[in-house]
Amino acid sequence: MSDKSYSLQQLADYLKCEFIGEADKKVDALASLEKAQQSQLTFVAQDKYVKLLDDCEAGIVVLKPGLQANWQGNRLLVDDPYKAFAQLSKLFETRPKAPIGVHPSSVVAESAQISATARIAANCVIEEGVSIGEHTEIGPGCVVGANSVIGENCLLHANVSVYHDVSIGSHCIVHSGTVLGSDGFGFAPSKEEGWVKIHQLGGLRIGERVEIGSNTSIDRGALSDTVIEKGVIIDNLVHIAHGVHIGEGTAIAGCVGVAGSTTIGKHCTIAGAVAINGHIEIADNVHFHGGTIVTKGISEPGAYASIAPVQDVKKWRRNSVRYTQLDELASRVRKLEKNT
Amino acid sequence: MSDKSYSLQQLADYLKCEFIGEADKKVDALASLEKAQQSQLTFVAQDKYVKLLDDCEAGIVVLKPGLQANWQGNRLLVDDPYKAFAQLSKLFETRPKAPIGVHPSSVVAESAQISATARIAANCVIEEGVSIGEHTEIGPGCVVGANSVIGENCLLHANVSVYHDVSIGSHCIVHSGTVLGSDGFGFAPSKEEGWVKIHQLGGLRIGERVEIGSNTSIDRGALSDTVIEKGVIIDNLVHIAHGVHIGEGTAIAGCVGVAGSTTIGKHCTIAGAVAINGHIEIADNVHFHGGTIVTKGISEPGAYASIAPVQDVKKWRRNSVRYTQLDELASRVRKLEKNT
Amino acid sequence: MSDKSYSLQQLADYLKCEFIGEADKKVDALASLEKAQQSQLTFVAQDKYVKLLDDCEAGIVVLKPGLQANWQGNRLLVDDPYKAFAQLSKLFETRPKAPIGVHPSSVVAESAQISATARIAANCVIEEGVSIGEHTEIGPGCVVGANSVIGENCLLHANVSVYHDVSIGSHCIVHSGTVLGSDGFGFAPSKEEGWVKIHQLGGLRIGERVEIGSNTSIDRGALSDTVIEKGVIIDNLVHIAHGVHIGEGTAIAGCVGVAGSTTIGKHCTIAGAVAINGHIEIADNVHFHGGTIVTKGISEPGAYASIAPVQDVKKWRRNSVRYTQLDELASRVRKLEKNT
Repeated sequence: MSDKSYSLQQLADYLKCEFIGEADKKVDALASLEKAQQSQLTFVAQDKYVKLLDDCEAGIVVLKPGLQANWQGNRLLVDDPYKAFAQLSKLFETRPKAPIGVHPSSVVAESAQISATARIAANCVIEEGVSIGEHTEIGPGCVVGANSVIGENCLLHANVSVYHDVSIGSHCIVHSGTVLGSDGFGFAPSKEEGWVKIHQLGGLRIGERVEIGSNTSIDRGALSDTVIEKGVIIDNLVHIAHGVHIGEGTAIAGCVGVAGSTTIGKHCTIAGAVAINGHIEIADNVHFHGGTIVTKGISEPGAYASIAPVQDVKKWRRNSVRYTQLDELASRVRKLEKNT
Repeated sequence: MSDKSYSLQQLADYLKCEFIGEADKKVDALASLEKAQQSQLTFVAQDKYVKLLDDCEAGIVVLKPGLQANWQGNRLLVDDPYKAFAQLSKLFETRPKAPIGVHPSSVVAESAQISATARIAANCVIEEGVSIGEHTEIGPGCVVGANSVIGENCLLHANVSVYHDVSIGSHCIVHSGTVLGSDGFGFAPSKEEGWVKIHQLGGLRIGERVEIGSNTSIDRGALSDTVIEKGVIIDNLVHIAHGVHIGEGTAIAGCVGVAGSTTIGKHCTIAGAVAINGHIEIADNVHFHGGTIVTKGISEPGAYASIAPVQDVKKWRRNSVRYTQLDELASRVRKLEKNT
Repeated sequence: MSDKSYSLQQLADYLKCEFIGEADKKVDALASLEKAQQSQLTFVAQDKYVKLLDDCEAGIVVLKPGLQANWQGNRLLVDDPYKAFAQLSKLFETRPKAPIGVHPSSVVAESAQISATARIAANCVIEEGVSIGEHTEIGPGCVVGANSVIGENCLLHANVSVYHDVSIGSHCIVHSGTVLGSDGFGFAPSKEEGWVKIHQLGGLRIGERVEIGSNTSIDRGALSDTVIEKGVIIDNLVHIAHGVHIGEGTAIAGCVGVAGSTTIGKHCTIAGAVAINGHIEIADNVHFHGGTIVTKGISEPGAYASIAPVQDVKKWRRNSVRYTQLDELASRVRKLEKNT
């Protein structure tokens, strides 16, 4: 797909690592161990994959120094081949950037401060008082609300909506359809008037090097800010409610929901389709398995889960009925124990 | 954040309530009991928080007449401080409105009727036959499909998509990325042709004073309309399928899904990540706990739940295996009972 | 709603079927058995609904030849009335199309190839190298990224975001807010640098006759493409991660999430709110009940489920506690068995 190619020497220089083989051997793409061709580079992420090298046709292989004897072709030797693969992936990115400057179809308020090196694509709306940092790219159709601040070297893909008074740190990536700073779900119940809206007066602060997937929603705070600390990664279709605080380096997979005022620690990994209750605290280094419903705070690091295993429907139906009788079953066992 | 400030007298007049203290004491923001400063107002939502007043530094406190002796500073006395807080929050809203009129970058069909007091922001598309009521604001990048009607005093935030033949009552708020009136998921299976699309000929009717969060999808009906009654509040990333009817004043939290042709009663509260089956009826005043999967109709008011509690992974793994053997375990208990 | 009307003769010609009754009897809408009026057509989808014909006031009824004696009015006789209803629904569609050509407010790159019969609505952005096929309609506010290809007779509703290097087959429909080709959630962990982004170099290939609902996200692949085969139907708010392969004719309902590198077979039906783990294989003709969390691959066709039934909260609380003690309960039963 890419029209870029790099020699073994160039790649070793880029990774600052040793190599073995023909310095001028060139590759023009990355591929998996099974699919890589002569013109492509691949990597051995874990020792268990080393046997796949027997049938590998890659032009260059990235692997640990300890495994170098397992491949006689061109080698890049690094301690962490998976990380090296991530670093190399950047070289082969094919998405064309928008040109530097503001596309004439975009509507930019007079008081907005757009860096001279920023790239504002077509049909954007940038409201009053906005600040956009150096080398930041705003994709087509994005809206950035009044007084919001976007740092340097950010990339907002097409059709992102940023509300007013949102701040986004440097080196952040936000994918299409994502909404940053929408109102939290706050209403006071009233017999006469129904739900009375609590206007959401807090903001949303996102640290640096945060990546947010597509069609995700992160609400602004009711009184104080919603906060996403630096280095957090968030996948698609994630809901983060008002007043949530997500600690540094935490990873949140697709379809997760986090209810209001919850604090999640640093370096947590939250698998897909997890739902986390409001007003609770999750410690650092907690892992939730996919689909877990988290009703209470977690004070100890570790792995947690809640879901029942998938079963064929006949078996599931019988076991489900028993589930609704569990307390009764436990009483019957207790009675048996007494009588024995 | 706000540059507005209000005196104790002004706030008492606005709330139509009694006050005690310096009539000209001014505040310029709302804050929580713990964080409020001299220039800020706070409130005691529930009696149990009264002890936080000991260390409170707020300039004004909203509280019940019965608790007025617990605070010696400036007081606003109301029967429902939480509702008063909601009402006051409106005064301190900082989002700038779009100017009255149609931004020249927006594309408005000739037959569309836009009130002279409406605000159409930049880069909108308003199709033929649309009607937009007085004081309604349409945010940047919104699309309103042919013949749709939006009432008075509504606010659509940026990048909302409204399909054709959708009606939205007055005083509604819709957040960014939300889609109103997309096709329901209706297909007839056919051996030869695969899934044959059932064109969705019904509309979508939304009552007045409805608020809908960001990235939510509400489908139009297949034959008759999907209906959201007045006073309903819906959070982010909610899916409401074709032909669903949601009763007055019901609240639906984030990540909820409601399948087709289901009727939900009035004044229900549906917590986050609940999924509700299609073609069922849920009575008025039903509450579902977060994460509940609702497979059958509910005919009695009350609270319902289905999820298993979160456990550490070792314990969860053992219990999960047992869950798949529950029916067998029950048989074994029955056998023991017979033998005793 | 529609201003179109069709005679019994015209409808029989369209369906290529027999009719009984007045050839020039006209109807102008479709309706359910219960609600249909004299000017409307209805259908008997299943034999069990035949008793509703007693009170039916429809002008024309579609039914199986075997049931024709149950209705004395105008009849269309077809083997599959539900499919006929789907086919007829197309005739009564009321959404006006965008005009042929490119709306002047849209920004189209010079190298983009737009068919002369295509319809590009207002405020679209079509990037370099894009190809858009005959009779395809692109709704207002859509963005199509560089080098993406959209086939013939497609319809993208308003505010769809298509990334670069995405291909969409002919006769596809994509609803508003949907994002096609966003980056997969791929990061290499690094002690020093946190999460290192793996640039997603694969594409997204969507076959023909695919329909995708609103606010759905489908990611591009990391190295090889994400693939949606022909005839797949996908509902709203669905998350499909990088490298997923979905087989022909599979149906995926709302709020489903599919994690990375998973393969789903042909003709599967995945009900709402199902979450499917990554790196697993699901066979052809598998059905998952709503809310099921699928942790392991499924090698046999059939129906599967995992969720616990909804209970009133008091009962649920007691049974939930027992669930966390299940393994212990099983041990106690074993002990009792030994002692008997």
